Amino acid sequence: MWSDLAPIGRSASSGGYFRQPFTQPERELADWFREQAAARGLSLESDATGNLVAWWDPDEGVVREQTAPGLADQGPLNHGLSRRAGGVLTGSHLDSVLDGGAYDGPLGVVSALAAVDELRSRGVVPTRPVGVSVFVEEEGSRFGLACLGSRLASGAISWEQARGLRDRDGVAFEEVVEGGGPGLLRDVACFVELHVEQGRDLVDRGTAVGVASEIWPHGRYRFDLAGEANHAGSTRMEDRADPMLTYAMTALAANKQARLAGQRATFGRLEVTPNGTNAVPSRVLAWLDARCSSEDALSELVDTITRQATERAERDGTTVSVTAESVSGAVAFDPDLAARIAADHEEGDWPIIPTAAGHDAGILSTMGIPTAMLFVRNPTGVSHSPAETASIPDCLAGVHALAETLERLAT
Amino acid sequence: MWSDLAPIGRSASSGGYFRQPFTQPERELADWFREQAAARGLSLESDATGNLVAWWDPDEGVVREQTAPGLADQGPLNHGLSRRAGGVLTGSHLDSVLDGGAYDGPLGVVSALAAVDELRSRGVVPTRPVGVSVFVEEEGSRFGLACLGSRLASGAISWEQARGLRDRDGVAFEEVVEGGGPGLLRDVACFVELHVEQGRDLVDRGTAVGVASEIWPHGRYRFDLAGEANHAGSTRMEDRADPMLTYAMTALAANKQARLAGQRATFGRLEVTPNGTNAVPSRVLAWLDARCSSEDALSELVDTITRQATERAERDGTTVSVTAESVSGAVAFDPDLAARIAADHEEGDWPIIPTAAGHDAGILSTMGIPTAMLFVRNPTGVSHSPAETASIPDCLAGVHALAETLERLAT
Repeated sequence: MWSDLAPIGRSASSGGYFRQPFTQPERELADWFREQAAARGLSLESDATGNLVAWWDPDEGVVREQTAPGLADQGPLNHGLSRRAGGVLTGSHLDSVLDGGAYDGPLGVVSALAAVDELRSRGVVPTRPVGVSVFVEEEGSRFGLACLGSRLASGAISWEQARGLRDRDGVAFEEVVEGGGPGLLRDVACFVELHVEQGRDLVDRGTAVGVASEIWPHGRYRFDLAGEANHAGSTRMEDRADPMLTYAMTALAANKQARLAGQRATFGRLEVTPNGTNAVPSRVLAWLDARCSSEDALSELVDTITRQATERAERDGTTVSVTAESVSGAVAFDPDLAARIAADHEEGDWPIIPTAAGHDAGILSTMGIPTAMLFVRNPTGVSHSPAETASIPDCLAGVHALAETLERLAT
Repeated sequence: MWSDLAPIGRSASSGGYFRQPFTQPERELADWFREQAAARGLSLESDATGNLVAWWDPDEGVVREQTAPGLADQGPLNHGLSRRAGGVLTGSHLDSVLDGGAYDGPLGVVSALAAVDELRSRGVVPTRPVGVSVFVEEEGSRFGLACLGSRLASGAISWEQARGLRDRDGVAFEEVVEGGGPGLLRDVACFVELHVEQGRDLVDRGTAVGVASEIWPHGRYRFDLAGEANHAGSTRMEDRADPMLTYAMTALAANKQARLAGQRATFGRLEVTPNGTNAVPSRVLAWLDARCSSEDALSELVDTITRQATERAERDGTTVSVTAESVSGAVAFDPDLAARIAADHEEGDWPIIPTAAGHDAGILSTMGIPTAMLFVRNPTGVSHSPAETASIPDCLAGVHALAETLERLAT
């Protein structure tokens, strides 16, 4: 499976992946998933926004395609994802950040399919349906809101809130998907997402697999810094109102505050207007990604950065406006579920560790679905980068761990 | 004429102009110029890179189109711009920076045509041909090299050096122009460019028109800052190699050094890779525009900024590479010509003032053509911005001043 996926959406120059939602590479991955489901005789469901689930349901005699019986007459808004009340769901996503790595997302989908294969080869017959899911736009790399697919599927946001989201070219979300629908995932018994670790906790602990305890609260904040465009040569330094200076100080302040507080703050995305070499910019849009160990710490960090930006803007003759594009509170995964998954393995208990990265699992947990995550060791800790990696033995250990987990939960 | 030009290439949202070379708006301006030349019975010449000259030549009985007699059999490389040995050339450019103002460039072209009209209405008959010129890509907003058209026409650079220049979409200069050709402007007697002032010197002096003494040396330098892409949430601050931090410190250092030294330094253009909200960038490309009162001061300023960037990069675990994309030495305009133009007017002598902005006139001067510039007062000093402006009485004073100048030089 891994060699099928390797070339899709890969940039030859960087070695990274560009798998933005509803672009050709990402659609090819979705088609690949449909083929994998069909080859295993799994019953595929989809919803109107493109989320997919392939069900392994031993009580089901035949392979069914798409729309659930009895719901077909209710039109496209109601098909998909609702039939398997009591099922155990596992999976991840296939989209990537811009120039991302191979493992973030696909490892969870491939491992879920491989875990089903392992259970079947061992003759395990689940007493609950087991579903392998693929959620769209987990990274938010196109429409700006991370976990968009799982938010819609779980009812965390409404179609009315999502339909008008636009990508950088002005294309609306509703233009690329079939339509909206009600939150359709609330009937599953539990969700388990396997993911490559995006840090080095498991390296430090010397173990291949871990279980998530919690996700730090985090948010995305757009800083709109406005000044006055002017000639870069003939305008005296003291006559300028240059928002680039306000931005530069803000980026350094964010880094310093996060370091001092033991938290995380990043400016990784910018839009400069007019972005010409010989023009003082009129406007800089900059996106702050902030993550903290508590919600109070997150508020305090963002407030401090905003205050420092505003103070600098007064000196620069510019203005600052900050918009919280998305803020996610702390997610504590179901502790009983985590303990049940982590305990009593041949190699001992698996460690239970926190993460600062957001995941679909966090959304589902917040929406009341008992949820857990498995992490696979990342030797460098690097993620959201072409350099992201995991060793083959660790990936196989992840598959085995997920198979054991599904066996505990679904039999 | 001004109302003809006002809507072309204007953004309704910003009020600024997008007239990049060989885009539809800029080509429409070139067609407009051809119409204006034809309406006045001026003889239009062009060269293979799109530079235009409309000649008022009283010795010429008929209106001739395009190719010079005797040169037609030498093919497209040799047509245009060479016939009027001993002629007086005036004009400017019609392209704009991204989101630029209405006056930078077009004011010089419109005023040149209006000055010809004024001289004719007063019955002045020149003893030398008078040419109104339009040079392409003065701003360097598309192919990155300012004054590209005048550099080619004057032989300051060769076609071989220019043909491979690429715009931000990867389109090569040679793909949008007819071809190259020899430097074709060296036979003219002199060149005078009227331009809106891009500063407030004339405001401070309380006069509508001034004459240029010199152009400060200036250059464009690309800073290539490389680090390591990583996850913005899960990567510890101390594990990062974030080139955005190196950039931010460099931008603040450039501003500080320029202020301390009484010079100019601007970072107005950036490209961030991958430019995603939740990814530490792998690379930041940033362009420094630097201008100084002497060549030594320019070298010292750029060296200091480069050294500070390099020191910061060592702390950030990033790397810095600086490439000088274009550097222009000091231009001292012909002092005798300036004195001859500035002296003995009804309102007294016109002031002779320096500028930090580059112009086609600077290129022609460097190439040995006696060259002068007239500036028209800019009430705010703002340029390269939608807010750029000049009053109607001042613009009319500029036309009159240019007519007087042409009369002195061509009769």
